[in-house]
Amino acid sequence: MIYIPAGFAILFSVYLFFRVKAVSILKTEGASAASFEELKNCYETIQAGAKAFLWAEYQVCTIFVILFAVLVFILTSRIPTLSATGDSYEWKWKIGGLTCASFLVGAFTSILSGYIGMMVAVFANGRTTVAALADGGAGWTAAFNVAFRSGAIMGFSNCGLALIILYGLCQIYRDVFTDIIDGKRYIQYTQLFECVSGFGLGGSAIALFGRVGGGIFTKAADVGADLSGKVIGLGDGKKLDEDSPYNPAVIADNVGDNVGDVAGMGSDLFGSLGEASCAAMLLGAAIGEISTAGWSALMYPLYISTIGICACLVMHFVATDIWPVRCETDIEKVLKIQLLGTAIIMSGIMYPVTDGFLPNSMTIDGVTRLVTSDNVYGCVLFGIWAGTIIGFITEYFTSHTYKPTRDVAKACETGAATNIIYGIALGYLSSIIPVGLIAGAVYFCLKTTGLYGVACGALGMLSTLATCLTIDVYGPISDNAGGIAEMAEFPPNVRDKTDALDAAGNTTAAIGKGFAIGSAALVSVSLTGAFVARCSFSMSAASKLNEHGVNLMSAVVFAFLIFGANIPYWFSALTMKSVGEAANSMVREVARQWAEIPGLKDTASLDFDTRAEKRAAGEKLATPDYQRCIAIATNASLKEMIAPAALVVLSPIIVGSLFGVEAVVGLLAGAMSSSVQLAISMSNTGGAWDNAKKFTEKGGLNGWTVVYAGKKSNVHAAAVVGDTVGDPFKDTSGPALNIVMKLMAIISVVFADFFMSINHGNGASHAGNLIY
Amino acid sequence: MIYIPAGFAILFSVYLFFRVKAVSILKTEGASAASFEELKNCYETIQAGAKAFLWAEYQVCTIFVILFAVLVFILTSRIPTLSATGDSYEWKWKIGGLTCASFLVGAFTSILSGYIGMMVAVFANGRTTVAALADGGAGWTAAFNVAFRSGAIMGFSNCGLALIILYGLCQIYRDVFTDIIDGKRYIQYTQLFECVSGFGLGGSAIALFGRVGGGIFTKAADVGADLSGKVIGLGDGKKLDEDSPYNPAVIADNVGDNVGDVAGMGSDLFGSLGEASCAAMLLGAAIGEISTAGWSALMYPLYISTIGICACLVMHFVATDIWPVRCETDIEKVLKIQLLGTAIIMSGIMYPVTDGFLPNSMTIDGVTRLVTSDNVYGCVLFGIWAGTIIGFITEYFTSHTYKPTRDVAKACETGAATNIIYGIALGYLSSIIPVGLIAGAVYFCLKTTGLYGVACGALGMLSTLATCLTIDVYGPISDNAGGIAEMAEFPPNVRDKTDALDAAGNTTAAIGKGFAIGSAALVSVSLTGAFVARCSFSMSAASKLNEHGVNLMSAVVFAFLIFGANIPYWFSALTMKSVGEAANSMVREVARQWAEIPGLKDTASLDFDTRAEKRAAGEKLATPDYQRCIAIATNASLKEMIAPAALVVLSPIIVGSLFGVEAVVGLLAGAMSSSVQLAISMSNTGGAWDNAKKFTEKGGLNGWTVVYAGKKSNVHAAAVVGDTVGDPFKDTSGPALNIVMKLMAIISVVFADFFMSINHGNGASHAGNLIY
Repeated sequence: MIYIPAGFAILFSVYLFFRVKAVSILKTEGASAASFEELKNCYETIQAGAKAFLWAEYQVCTIFVILFAVLVFILTSRIPTLSATGDSYEWKWKIGGLTCASFLVGAFTSILSGYIGMMVAVFANGRTTVAALADGGAGWTAAFNVAFRSGAIMGFSNCGLALIILYGLCQIYRDVFTDIIDGKRYIQYTQLFECVSGFGLGGSAIALFGRVGGGIFTKAADVGADLSGKVIGLGDGKKLDEDSPYNPAVIADNVGDNVGDVAGMGSDLFGSLGEASCAAMLLGAAIGEISTAGWSALMYPLYISTIGICACLVMHFVATDIWPVRCETDIEKVLKIQLLGTAIIMSGIMYPVTDGFLPNSMTIDGVTRLVTSDNVYGCVLFGIWAGTIIGFITEYFTSHTYKPTRDVAKACETGAATNIIYGIALGYLSSIIPVGLIAGAVYFCLKTTGLYGVACGALGMLSTLATCLTIDVYGPISDNAGGIAEMAEFPPNVRDKTDALDAAGNTTAAIGKGFAIGSAALVSVSLTGAFVARCSFSMSAASKLNEHGVNLMSAVVFAFLIFGANIPYWFSALTMKSVGEAANSMVREVARQWAEIPGLKDTASLDFDTRAEKRAAGEKLATPDYQRCIAIATNASLKEMIAPAALVVLSPIIVGSLFGVEAVVGLLAGAMSSSVQLAISMSNTGGAWDNAKKFTEKGGLNGWTVVYAGKKSNVHAAAVVGDTVGDPFKDTSGPALNIVMKLMAIISVVFADFFMSINHGNGASHAGNLIY
Repeated sequence: MIYIPAGFAILFSVYLFFRVKAVSILKTEGASAASFEELKNCYETIQAGAKAFLWAEYQVCTIFVILFAVLVFILTSRIPTLSATGDSYEWKWKIGGLTCASFLVGAFTSILSGYIGMMVAVFANGRTTVAALADGGAGWTAAFNVAFRSGAIMGFSNCGLALIILYGLCQIYRDVFTDIIDGKRYIQYTQLFECVSGFGLGGSAIALFGRVGGGIFTKAADVGADLSGKVIGLGDGKKLDEDSPYNPAVIADNVGDNVGDVAGMGSDLFGSLGEASCAAMLLGAAIGEISTAGWSALMYPLYISTIGICACLVMHFVATDIWPVRCETDIEKVLKIQLLGTAIIMSGIMYPVTDGFLPNSMTIDGVTRLVTSDNVYGCVLFGIWAGTIIGFITEYFTSHTYKPTRDVAKACETGAATNIIYGIALGYLSSIIPVGLIAGAVYFCLKTTGLYGVACGALGMLSTLATCLTIDVYGPISDNAGGIAEMAEFPPNVRDKTDALDAAGNTTAAIGKGFAIGSAALVSVSLTGAFVARCSFSMSAASKLNEHGVNLMSAVVFAFLIFGANIPYWFSALTMKSVGEAANSMVREVARQWAEIPGLKDTASLDFDTRAEKRAAGEKLATPDYQRCIAIATNASLKEMIAPAALVVLSPIIVGSLFGVEAVVGLLAGAMSSSVQLAISMSNTGGAWDNAKKFTEKGGLNGWTVVYAGKKSNVHAAAVVGDTVGDPFKDTSGPALNIVMKLMAIISVVFADFFMSINHGNGASHAGNLIY
């Protein structure tokens, strides 16, 4: 039931790859040969840059993974013993080894997911440009389909891989944890899933580097390119265009789109899927009826994701074949139908699946009645629709079709300051309903189905993952396609199409981020719950975490709640400053190249045809040193990601070791509640600023009589300030906060036994804390 | 022990008033008669504007107070009965009436505090300008002393009034709650202090309007004046100066400084003092040994504040007489010595006082050992020094003497966007240590002394209140003095002195805000605790809030924690947008006046001497209609403060009524943890942007070779964007968040019985939630 659909998803993504590959970038019609030559250059440079960055990043990741694996191995081997005196522990190297192994598998699968997505994206961007050459409806269909199918490659291969590997791991560990006593098989499910949860840790650890490193890279390049565009003059009063091939930072900017939004996002959502599944299985194993019902009931969480893949597959054909895109206005409609359709199909199919695999009634900690399989279905349903609504709310606040973003654009009339004030206020306002839905999901799921319900709700929200990833990756591909069209000076109708694809992509990227944040929040709550549950399994004698609950009013819990709420701010400050610093180095490098590379300025001032002629005449034209800019962004991002990563990884370990498990619960709850707000508001503020800028470029639209601006006006200049501030908001700090909340929680789950073995001696004082 | 020092403080403030009054604004030396004429005009217009605003605001407040008093009366009369079946309640009109009475007393005392401060401030600004006329050291001393003494009038009268009235209230209620049975007097302390806690509610409710209404007023005027300065041209390419007397918004701007920073801050800190005292007395009454020890032990919280007043009195003379200010560099030193000196004196005296009044050992809920009076002293000490350190950290991050703000100034070199990014990052970073200290205080106090310790820690932090208020009010007075000097075109040496006073005032205002936020956080935690304690007193049969604690992992608590954390964002979004809207109306009004008032533009273009001559020749010159601008700011602020106020007041009432008391605890914890972060980061970001702008105006300073700018450069323009964004950050949304956390908590405390009487029927399901 799992291998077949997941395997099919992977095969399907291979099929899509060949569909995309069929578009040749070596065409010669529709544009000049010089343009195609330039396109090929760009394409190859971006590909090389992306590979170089990933190679460098994954080297750092590998070192981290190996070192952290040793830590995981040692710390998870130290298990407290269930003794009445409560002051002993023992070393169980088998547990540590298996946890460490699943950590490594998770980490490398995550690396693979990011790599695949990235390679497909850089493979597809030039092809999208070429596909957009065709005229009329066929051109729209072709360009959209290339970008969309490439996104789907990432979506399906990512989900398929995650499921196959996770399921395989569970099967292998099942054999390890099977004891045969008197001919009967006993499986230690709880220990099994505790060891498996290393998989989620591995996935999220890589995602942290992907999001933070990639986020810093992409925004350092983007902000750097924007600022150099402003700083460098072309002689006759004109400024260097940020998209010009003679801006040395431009290729780094294109590489960045792939690194941050594709590889980072891929690893992030892979991590969410892995963690939510681990949390759900761990919590499921604690429910007597589910363990008794056996393997297929335990594997129910993975079925949610499997059904999700199938639903996404069906919907995929709707977009590319049944109702293909034929004009500009089709794009957003088609993408929204994807999301809505997947949610509807899922809602239908999940009912029989839940009914079939789960026991009819269950006893779940903290729920006074018996829980039915219908309750679990209710949680999944809540998750699916909460996610979908969050997506649409995000769209409402960030698309310039609606009032909020238009208000921000209007505020640009009185300058950059009012733009910033309105943008920040918009972000804060936009968080109200999503936060309400997340809080509602927590309330509904916990109340009806306990923590298991929260984890299933998270999986419900993630069930549309393949579609989400598709429309998410589609954005950067279109963006890059537009950049390439600009650099290679393709005919304007190409740029029109790619711009429209990109504008829709901006909104869908925001929708994707909304999903990512919502699911991360639920995953984080269920992992916090899994942590509490795990502490209760292991230490029922000394600590009473689950019996009396975690007392919010106790000293450690309240104090660390306050402190935990600070961590997302700390983290954001570090990442935002990193972007600023890296962008400054980039600007310096660009200025250096303009000063030092002979002929660069003159060549940049020529028009395209003259350059083509000169090139045809065999003259060697000056080109910027793109590689140096890529190297600067790479080094900056690798250096700067250390501090925020250390903050996230070390804080739960230090707090847990020094202050015990209650302190960790407070820390996680504080960090989670504060991350959600910041992540949503930062993403939406950034998205709104970006689209407000686009709106001022278009001028008064659809009778919205406010802004007429165009590219050189003061209004546009004010809008650009917002857009630049928004870059690190929406693509570095905001989305990385997902990982902050998830990673802190999964680290706590994995190291729970260690925290207890350390604080074992003062178990009594801990129990004391509970009744503060 | 309380009446005498508090009464003396009030007398002292009367004495200071006469000292300030001795400076005549009708002098004729040192500047031209025309300047003095202009000064008198400005002075009177500001005074009239301030009165008009306060009058309008307090009308709205009075209506609110009366309506809310009815609600308080009815809801607090509904008391759940302690029955085993747990589903009944009764009406106790005496309780409701007394709570309502103390609410009214608190509200009107708060109004009085704000009014006194405001009137003194507008009385002192012109006098400070005149005092600055004297040359050399004497001029510095005179100007500083006038501003400082006027601040002290506010500080001492505010603290004195709060203490006398609160103590009087307690004494009256003591008689009401005394039953004489068999010739022995029994006093129902718990009910007594529950009724007294209406005092804190009244204080904070007015503070909310003061902070929000005043904050919107001041920043609408400020941003409006800034933007009109940019928008309006004077003909020959010059722009209208924001401080010019021909900018119609300029007087509104000056009025605003007094309205927001003086009256709002006064009510805010008055509210903190009232609430912290109520919380501490309520929690103290629950400690058996304290009730047994009698009245003076119960009144210990008020003694902390009383000693604080004495310490501040002693230190006052250090600033004005012992080490008077003689030159520019003295100012910051003297202000810092004030703070440090008060803290040192307090630390010494509090030991014998605590030892003398409190029992030697106490049994406090949640603390396993016996609590000694030394433990309580420890909490007070922690509070005093945590506050002082928070103050100095705030100074480090917001003063342009240090690296953080200079980095922000440097970031202006690459434009407004990097300025914004660095400024926001600075705010987030600056919150780490203060939040750590607040979390540390909560941990230390709860751990050693329970919730009573937290409340005493808050009072310790507030014990330097008179000094804090003094140096806080001193800022806007100096700012206004400078504005008046500019408008009346006094000699440059006057402006130099007032500018220096103002710059120091900016930093001390930031310190004051740090104190206000820190103490608000502790007050909020102790009120949350008082709420939990109160629920346990009243409902020990049906609910077990205090026995098992509040389970963080239960559905209602976790869900409302997440939702509560959103409220500060919601609130900030509303207030920030209000400032934007109001500023826009202001800009429109200014443009209208310039278009419609005949001769205004011509008069503004003349130089001062020509205008003086014309005026001397009896010509009637055109003047802007300042009143209209003041009216616009007033109406905008009154209209716009409704929505945020409703959010804060209604959310705990609705949540408590519909979801019960655990939901309220979650809501309060979430709102508190998130308010602290936002409040600190917003205040500091705004302060840093303001001072970064000042730094770019000065150019490279003290070998810091970076920025050379001056008023018309691009760097300065970028810095101005930050300053304008920072205005609502630091003076509207940021400081108002103090009130959000305190007010929500005190409302919950006052309405606790009502929530329980409503949710009584499902008491069982609530108890169920605890062990979720």
